[in-house]
Amino acid sequence: MPELRRDPIVGRWVIIATDRAKRPSDLARPAAAPQSGLCPFCPGHEDKTPREVYVTGRAPGAPANGPGWKVRVVPNRFPALKIEGDLDRKAEGIYDLMNGIGAHEVVIETPEHGRHMKDLTEQELTEVLFAFKARILDLRNDLRFRYILLFKNHGALAGASLEHPHAQLIALPVTPRQVQDEIDGARRHFEHRERCIFCDVVAQERKDRSRLVFENEEFLVFAPWAPRSPFETWIMPKRHESNYEAEPKERLGLCAQALRTTLRRLSAALGDPSYNFIVHSNPLRDLPTPSYHWHIEVMPALTQVAGFEWGSGFHINPVPPEEAAEFLRKVVA
Amino acid sequence: MPELRRDPIVGRWVIIATDRAKRPSDLARPAAAPQSGLCPFCPGHEDKTPREVYVTGRAPGAPANGPGWKVRVVPNRFPALKIEGDLDRKAEGIYDLMNGIGAHEVVIETPEHGRHMKDLTEQELTEVLFAFKARILDLRNDLRFRYILLFKNHGALAGASLEHPHAQLIALPVTPRQVQDEIDGARRHFEHRERCIFCDVVAQERKDRSRLVFENEEFLVFAPWAPRSPFETWIMPKRHESNYEAEPKERLGLCAQALRTTLRRLSAALGDPSYNFIVHSNPLRDLPTPSYHWHIEVMPALTQVAGFEWGSGFHINPVPPEEAAEFLRKVVA
Repeated sequence: MPELRRDPIVGRWVIIATDRAKRPSDLARPAAAPQSGLCPFCPGHEDKTPREVYVTGRAPGAPANGPGWKVRVVPNRFPALKIEGDLDRKAEGIYDLMNGIGAHEVVIETPEHGRHMKDLTEQELTEVLFAFKARILDLRNDLRFRYILLFKNHGALAGASLEHPHAQLIALPVTPRQVQDEIDGARRHFEHRERCIFCDVVAQERKDRSRLVFENEEFLVFAPWAPRSPFETWIMPKRHESNYEAEPKERLGLCAQALRTTLRRLSAALGDPSYNFIVHSNPLRDLPTPSYHWHIEVMPALTQVAGFEWGSGFHINPVPPEEAAEFLRKVVA
Repeated sequence: MPELRRDPIVGRWVIIATDRAKRPSDLARPAAAPQSGLCPFCPGHEDKTPREVYVTGRAPGAPANGPGWKVRVVPNRFPALKIEGDLDRKAEGIYDLMNGIGAHEVVIETPEHGRHMKDLTEQELTEVLFAFKARILDLRNDLRFRYILLFKNHGALAGASLEHPHAQLIALPVTPRQVQDEIDGARRHFEHRERCIFCDVVAQERKDRSRLVFENEEFLVFAPWAPRSPFETWIMPKRHESNYEAEPKERLGLCAQALRTTLRRLSAALGDPSYNFIVHSNPLRDLPTPSYHWHIEVMPALTQVAGFEWGSGFHINPVPPEEAAEFLRKVVA
């Protein structure tokens, strides 16, 4: 059973994934990803993954866990956290730990091994974003979970170990400190000004336009004021909404258009870079709130986290967001 | 002039290093480091760096900025922050920024290009640690600076762009949030218990011994309870001291022994891994305090920061610290 351990000074949690334990000699960086012939996410290999928990596209009456699907969500075969067991918190001297309870699922975005998320049609990507919502709505019924982190690692430099297009979600028994910091920061702003800081950001970016990349009726795509990495890009609903899973399918369709545009332009500008994206949304047990505003942060993996970043939490970014946005506005995707 | 920009929600600062600006096509990972024939840190190439601000080993009367040195500290030729100018804080709508004032220096540890820090003798390493102290004592006279981050990136996977052994320091006009979090966490512990949390950690680790790697009269080397990466190792003075620069040279000698042992054992265990180390010390303008305790954190670069880590601040570590410590206790360096 993995363990969640808390650093006693800064309160940072770490998952000690003992089941994944490796010998020191195995700790070299992972080798190349398997080719499609061996890919556990390709159609025909459904028995190489745990049984599906969500699927679209399969013909009525067709058996589960066989081919014919369009989006397929399965538990991770090597989960960082385990779904079985009780949440058990205890102390070890001055230290805190708890059982590594959680869910770790993989959202397989398409049956086609070689298609990237950016190559999906708007309709296909909408189905992926809807699958995210469906999984949140299901997993939030499990009262052990406090937060669901939805994210995607694309490319080896962004930590992807399998090539077949997939996103991931991890349901956690605690709200991560980084998420809580964001929620607390937004709440402080609301307490002072009775306004949502993210709505303020949307208003300033629409007025200023120098960091704007794209917008449609419902979503704004822009380079944030203080980006950690070159070409970091945020996708934010213009209308206030704290919870991703509250969005109706029509609005997820417009989100898919914004996300697809972002990924295609980043790919054209930077030559298919590795990237991470993270869905930032309100914690499961918090009520919908006027102070928090869900959004997606896309970070191309172009710079390396080194000693200065580790030690300070500061980031050094050689590309001003205004230059990145101008480039992304003009690039032909 | 670089800019320091503050994220309006979480308060994270980012250095927008405009002078380093690159075209999108230049953002690929850096290529191999230059060989020693072209290395700006090698003896005989002193004119390839800005003029030295600290040096040891040169014969009395020998000219500055020529060969004959043992440790040499120079300003970084491509600094993340600039030393000239006034600290100018301003708003841009809802956003905050300030001039990128600071110092960015390189501590060249040895004239020998191919020797790693772990290969230095204890005496040589003591001189490097003493150079860190001397630079802090000098730079703290500049009242624009609030914090000095001392760190080392070794190896390409840890972000080193030059092979010649060197450490770095960045003097900052703000205390980084990550440092402040640590100081605040330690202060809360002290307020509750009237004890230093780090002294408590030292006591528990010495009693428990399962995470212990090495100790001498003054320093403890151990795997922390909640390590972010496999084989993360901390070096901590056993005696309470909040400020690195307060340590006398004899104690820095024992610190050098502990650091050298750590680096040699990590190298033997993991095959000369890339690593970062960071000196954690009390901010320049804070008084010495009973609640904070300086130390060094060494992090081998074995796992990749991916979407989950970016989004949550959680880390997934496949090696329990007890296993890492046992391995490091037994390995022959």
